[in-house]
Amino acid sequence: MVEVKLSLGAKEAVLEIEKETKLLEILQKNNFEIDADCGGAGRCGNCKVVVQGELSPLKSKERDLLSELELEQGVRLACLTEVEGAVEIEHLLGNRTSLQILDEGTEGELALKPQVQKQYLELIEPSLADQVSDWTRVLRELKQKPEIELELLKQLPTILREADYQLTVVQLAGQVIALEAGDTTADIYGLAFDIGTTTVVGYLLDLSTGAQLGKAALNNQQMSYGADAISRVNYTLAEEKGAIKLQEKIIETINRIISQLLSEHQVNKERVYELTFVGNTIMNHLLLGLETEYIAKSPYVSVINEAQLIPAHKLGIELGSSSYLSYLPNVASYVGSDIVAGVLISEMAESSELKLLIDLGTNSEIVLGNQERIIACAAAAGPAFEGAEIEFGMRGTEGAIEKLRITEAGVKIEVIGQQAPKGICGSGIVDLLAELLKNGLIDKTGRLLAAQDLDDDVAESIKELIIEEDKSRKLILVEAEQSASGEAITVSQKDIRAIQLAQGAIRAGIKILMKELGVEIADIKEVLIAGGFGNYIDHQQAVEFGLLPAADEIEYRGIGNAAGSGAKAAVLTTDKRKAAEKIAQKIEYFELSGRADFQTEFTEAMTFKKFE
Amino acid sequence: MVEVKLSLGAKEAVLEIEKETKLLEILQKNNFEIDADCGGAGRCGNCKVVVQGELSPLKSKERDLLSELELEQGVRLACLTEVEGAVEIEHLLGNRTSLQILDEGTEGELALKPQVQKQYLELIEPSLADQVSDWTRVLRELKQKPEIELELLKQLPTILREADYQLTVVQLAGQVIALEAGDTTADIYGLAFDIGTTTVVGYLLDLSTGAQLGKAALNNQQMSYGADAISRVNYTLAEEKGAIKLQEKIIETINRIISQLLSEHQVNKERVYELTFVGNTIMNHLLLGLETEYIAKSPYVSVINEAQLIPAHKLGIELGSSSYLSYLPNVASYVGSDIVAGVLISEMAESSELKLLIDLGTNSEIVLGNQERIIACAAAAGPAFEGAEIEFGMRGTEGAIEKLRITEAGVKIEVIGQQAPKGICGSGIVDLLAELLKNGLIDKTGRLLAAQDLDDDVAESIKELIIEEDKSRKLILVEAEQSASGEAITVSQKDIRAIQLAQGAIRAGIKILMKELGVEIADIKEVLIAGGFGNYIDHQQAVEFGLLPAADEIEYRGIGNAAGSGAKAAVLTTDKRKAAEKIAQKIEYFELSGRADFQTEFTEAMTFKKFE
Repeated sequence: MVEVKLSLGAKEAVLEIEKETKLLEILQKNNFEIDADCGGAGRCGNCKVVVQGELSPLKSKERDLLSELELEQGVRLACLTEVEGAVEIEHLLGNRTSLQILDEGTEGELALKPQVQKQYLELIEPSLADQVSDWTRVLRELKQKPEIELELLKQLPTILREADYQLTVVQLAGQVIALEAGDTTADIYGLAFDIGTTTVVGYLLDLSTGAQLGKAALNNQQMSYGADAISRVNYTLAEEKGAIKLQEKIIETINRIISQLLSEHQVNKERVYELTFVGNTIMNHLLLGLETEYIAKSPYVSVINEAQLIPAHKLGIELGSSSYLSYLPNVASYVGSDIVAGVLISEMAESSELKLLIDLGTNSEIVLGNQERIIACAAAAGPAFEGAEIEFGMRGTEGAIEKLRITEAGVKIEVIGQQAPKGICGSGIVDLLAELLKNGLIDKTGRLLAAQDLDDDVAESIKELIIEEDKSRKLILVEAEQSASGEAITVSQKDIRAIQLAQGAIRAGIKILMKELGVEIADIKEVLIAGGFGNYIDHQQAVEFGLLPAADEIEYRGIGNAAGSGAKAAVLTTDKRKAAEKIAQKIEYFELSGRADFQTEFTEAMTFKKFE
Repeated sequence: MVEVKLSLGAKEAVLEIEKETKLLEILQKNNFEIDADCGGAGRCGNCKVVVQGELSPLKSKERDLLSELELEQGVRLACLTEVEGAVEIEHLLGNRTSLQILDEGTEGELALKPQVQKQYLELIEPSLADQVSDWTRVLRELKQKPEIELELLKQLPTILREADYQLTVVQLAGQVIALEAGDTTADIYGLAFDIGTTTVVGYLLDLSTGAQLGKAALNNQQMSYGADAISRVNYTLAEEKGAIKLQEKIIETINRIISQLLSEHQVNKERVYELTFVGNTIMNHLLLGLETEYIAKSPYVSVINEAQLIPAHKLGIELGSSSYLSYLPNVASYVGSDIVAGVLISEMAESSELKLLIDLGTNSEIVLGNQERIIACAAAAGPAFEGAEIEFGMRGTEGAIEKLRITEAGVKIEVIGQQAPKGICGSGIVDLLAELLKNGLIDKTGRLLAAQDLDDDVAESIKELIIEEDKSRKLILVEAEQSASGEAITVSQKDIRAIQLAQGAIRAGIKILMKELGVEIADIKEVLIAGGFGNYIDHQQAVEFGLLPAADEIEYRGIGNAAGSGAKAAVLTTDKRKAAEKIAQKIEYFELSGRADFQTEFTEAMTFKKFE
């Protein structure tokens, strides 16, 4: 047994721990909130800790996932590090994701300045010489001159007198939203939500320190009413009260996350004053209970894109009566606040260099611009990169092939959770296409070649993997005996066509935007990949078969957590909220479905070749 | 029979009427709304009409109640004018009370500019070339950039499409409060309320023309829980849920008036967007459901004085979901928005000349000032001038002695409704005091003299009216056989003392304000008498015994309808609402109860003599 000391903010502990225990296990067993999105598989790089003492040697995966600076500062990944002797864990960096992300490139700029403000007042008691009304008494001591609602005015005389004229006034957007006896300025919390079509992630933020106290994720409970956003809109059209049902489901998801976060961190719901969410326009409208019919039908019109402030209880959100919900603004029906968050986090709007942001999905959003001008479009790419419409496609969960290489010795794979493979997820599909093309197994038109048509230098071991089955040609990726189901995992010509359609739509979208802006690929300095697997994709592989543009000086960056980070940034500082509003105003949306040139570009973009 | 033609705005009619019928009777029988507060007794001067043709000759009462200008313009009082031959009635001036009152001295200044605004939009339908959201589509055509509530956003897509993109947007205070299909700009109504402790008066206003459509009055249903404001506060303290009961009662009163006005004038409640009320601070707080306990207790602190905008349905007011309630601001616990309305209507705040405003009542408010500075106080005068605490005192209803003169022949009286007298009301009490003093029946200390102590020149007939009864001296005003009850109506020494306390408190209050402002009586150019009987009091008589200040150049004016006029002005034009808010800010309140000099002034002011 060795001694492990934990000094993590308010929480401190000294524990006797068995040698070779992973730091992640120690933290989780002792109820320390730590990000480990990949489940401790050493993939996500989120479980960063600052730690000193006798530890297992640095693993190569840690070198990949940590920056030079972090390595210097003694940062380790808790899931890959084991205790060898006495150890002291000082900081959970994972607990501060938002500030970290925001600090990138903007260091010193991010001031903690939430929308909700508390001011503690010690008022002079009324006397015959000072008879102003209770409200005037409060108002004359406030920096701003807010409005107050009747319900709070009703409580004011009692609160004032019971609190001996010492009270905390809580303001939001020019309105007093709560009156609290005594000094409660330290008790001020906010929630940020990333409302994904599949997954909903909530973050609990301490607005007095800026610290992220916790994070919790759940499947979007709307899932059983449609896997993607459009099928949920269809549900609202087909079913009477379908929209109400879907609203209930997302609110239920949010409430479960809130309940978990608040109880874990012992935060009183009356002290949580705001919840800001980010999500695509359909998720936004379903949550707010707004009509989605006209988003789905041409000419694709939403009800509102501008941000609103809504009492949370009006939507059934289980917070206090003083809690307000808001959201980052949307740009258009198919460019939502998640994309605005991406632009915010990438700092495209402040950059002199041209940046390209792509969110890969059934609806793939593409944004191109810099501080001068930002334009966007949405390409109907189909769900291939999400693993749907691919025979063995699956989401990036345990058992998914996430990396793939074709070598002379055969197909080499890496599987999430290091287990027998069940299928292939987005990052694996990207690898697969690149490898098929590099090894000459498919031609530029996407045709999967027969074994006899392959180049001579293709290894026999690979040629043997090409089979003809059900009148279709396939390549075996995993033999039956190695797969989890006992059935071979294959990729078929049909699968390749689905991927081809997806990449063609995205590439055509990028070309249209480039044409509108009058720029060349060489002008693009950074490509940002947002969306679910933005962080996991191998950019070089995506470049290989023409999904992402290729040029010598382009840098590629995954910003898979942009939506959550954007929501957190908005809660933490009004500056970022305002910046997001400006971004939504600034982005010009181009509708592809009305354009003749899109079809031309699309046909041309179907060829698998480098996008130069 | 003669022909009477009515051409009154939208309503027109030609009637066959019997000769010598009064105009008032014709109008009332044909459902024309006309003000006749005194019930057609020729006292209030409200039933003004512009009329041409063969009419009964001008009566002396009409000469008294109509201005030179009005006489020139052919204005007559409907209650005093009979038809003699063919006649045409053109305007009901009484229907435009607010504009009339406001026009006094400010002609041309009053522009119809209500707080609620309608704008009719013919929008372009969305297309692939114009995909902005429904809300942006509305917003870009609006002059202002308002906020919109979630409930309205939910309705927006359906309204827009059902109305073929032609809709009327209703805005109030930077907020969209209603969305109406088609062009409804002509349908826009407001309500103004004078919430008196005794009587509640409502006015229905057409905000597209500025016309007053109707007026209705009811007793304040709180009456059975206390005759005056303080006793109602006591009820809220003594009874659990007493405050809720009283709030229900005033809302019930308001709802009955609304229901009557809307059904009489066939106005849809969904088209009434605002209700503005005026009343003293206690009435204000009881209506809003705010705590009144600290208004009643030293140091007399209200919850709020500033104006608020509250959805009317939140208070149980039976208007549409888009109707908002507001009120004119109060100055202090005992200087309410009724006084602010008085200052507004009197234009004290714009005047270079010094004006004095007095609202006679249990709580008598006194305001002194001009454009430079306005100061105010409240004098606890007791209810003597309201007819309470006086043995035969009564309110100014039928059977009340409203005028009184003591002549050699005895006591001459005028009774409301020309019937056998029941008692004496405020204006009669003022006459009585003046007459008692002028005839030497009381001395300066207020002592009612015995018959033998009177001057020789007092007529025997008067001396005989002084009696000693129940160990108290009394003067018979009406002999038993002439009174309605068969019992003599008298005034006692005790009654005189009650009046003396009232006038002493008021006079002391005026002197304190004069001292604060450093002015003399000679500096005062106008004295305004507000409150229930402000219009009925004989100013010269009030001057006689020292209730009102006396100087050669002072003009006296009754502004008994200031509260209602102020509320109407605020509904009709935002300028007047803003002016009222400035007035409330401007008025400096002086608390008399904390002042040693008030007691000195009060003692001195008890002497009955001219206040010079």
